[in-house]
Amino acid sequence: MLQLYFSPMACSLASRIALMEAGLDARYHLVHLRTKAIADDDSDFRGVSPMGAVPVLVLENGERLTESAAVLQYIADAKPEAGLAPRFGDPDRYRLQEWLSFIGNEIHKAFLFPTFWYQDDGSLAKPRARIAQTLAVPSAHLADREFLVGNSFTVADAHLAWALLLLRPAGVDIAQWPPLSAYLERMQARPKVREAIAIELALRKTLAA
Amino acid sequence: MLQLYFSPMACSLASRIALMEAGLDARYHLVHLRTKAIADDDSDFRGVSPMGAVPVLVLENGERLTESAAVLQYIADAKPEAGLAPRFGDPDRYRLQEWLSFIGNEIHKAFLFPTFWYQDDGSLAKPRARIAQTLAVPSAHLADREFLVGNSFTVADAHLAWALLLLRPAGVDIAQWPPLSAYLERMQARPKVREAIAIELALRKTLAA
Repeated sequence: MLQLYFSPMACSLASRIALMEAGLDARYHLVHLRTKAIADDDSDFRGVSPMGAVPVLVLENGERLTESAAVLQYIADAKPEAGLAPRFGDPDRYRLQEWLSFIGNEIHKAFLFPTFWYQDDGSLAKPRARIAQTLAVPSAHLADREFLVGNSFTVADAHLAWALLLLRPAGVDIAQWPPLSAYLERMQARPKVREAIAIELALRKTLAA
Repeated sequence: MLQLYFSPMACSLASRIALMEAGLDARYHLVHLRTKAIADDDSDFRGVSPMGAVPVLVLENGERLTESAAVLQYIADAKPEAGLAPRFGDPDRYRLQEWLSFIGNEIHKAFLFPTFWYQDDGSLAKPRARIAQTLAVPSAHLADREFLVGNSFTVADAHLAWALLLLRPAGVDIAQWPPLSAYLERMQARPKVREAIAIELALRKTLAA
């Protein structure tokens, strides 16, 4: 059985959504990102991931795979009949990779990361100036499309839905981009997406209590 | 023929290396990243790429593909006999995707990007504190390996070689990680890598003159 190291509402949420949409059973291990402790037994997560970063997917053969772009494609390919990624050889597979990279690079690392690092307006000026330009790209793309790639839900949608959810606490109101807020509503209306988010929000509340 | 929009020594260098290692002819279009002008005709690059970011690969059918992780895999698959990526279905393909994502996210966006944005030590403290931990990961991996993935040069090596080259002007001396400096030397000893770098350094000098 696959295993996923995750932290509630961190980017590993996209991998949980992918696993649940694929109908794949998995064991989930909660990681406290601040202390780098694995909740199961309080062991050091850096023994699993040298960067101390989620997601980490433990494969059936015991190997560990990191980085959302790789983990999400692995999950999609583990259950091809779920259609969570265009098959290899389909030109849309590169579109999937393009979106996974764009979301990871431009939204997560170039915007959300600095908002975790800095509180002061000076340091945040550059990433804030950039985020409107960044979000205009998926907004234009989704103006007349239901999903990021092709005509059905893929792991790229799992990734973007997570990133959009995180923008509000980071101070960005996506209502400025009606195609994005409509898209996030559509994604959240999917039973598995809703269930995955509910699980992680509940865990987060328990941790905060 | 494929076409590549690039800026000298920007991350698009990895795509040039991949094209040259694959032996693929391509038309190269120089972009002035500061002014967003395409050197060919002084037109606005944002008409090609809404983010104004390189690389952009123009495919044979005229479609444009962005994001190094996607562009590099596309180039590798366009000439499978060059062996620049494990074939689809090979578990190492996910390792390639993992490294492409790691280099793009952790070295380029989480470290190099802030060094382009900020000059002050305060703003740079967080990314600087993180980069040693980041570089320890490929350093440990390469301590007993010649290449990032498998036993031959792949597009992940093109990507990492570029990132390591950029670390010096960003104030990081990779001599602290002997496996990384030995690796960069090995990569730079490859004729096509050396040629690609020489072309872009010369262009950069011309632009600065």
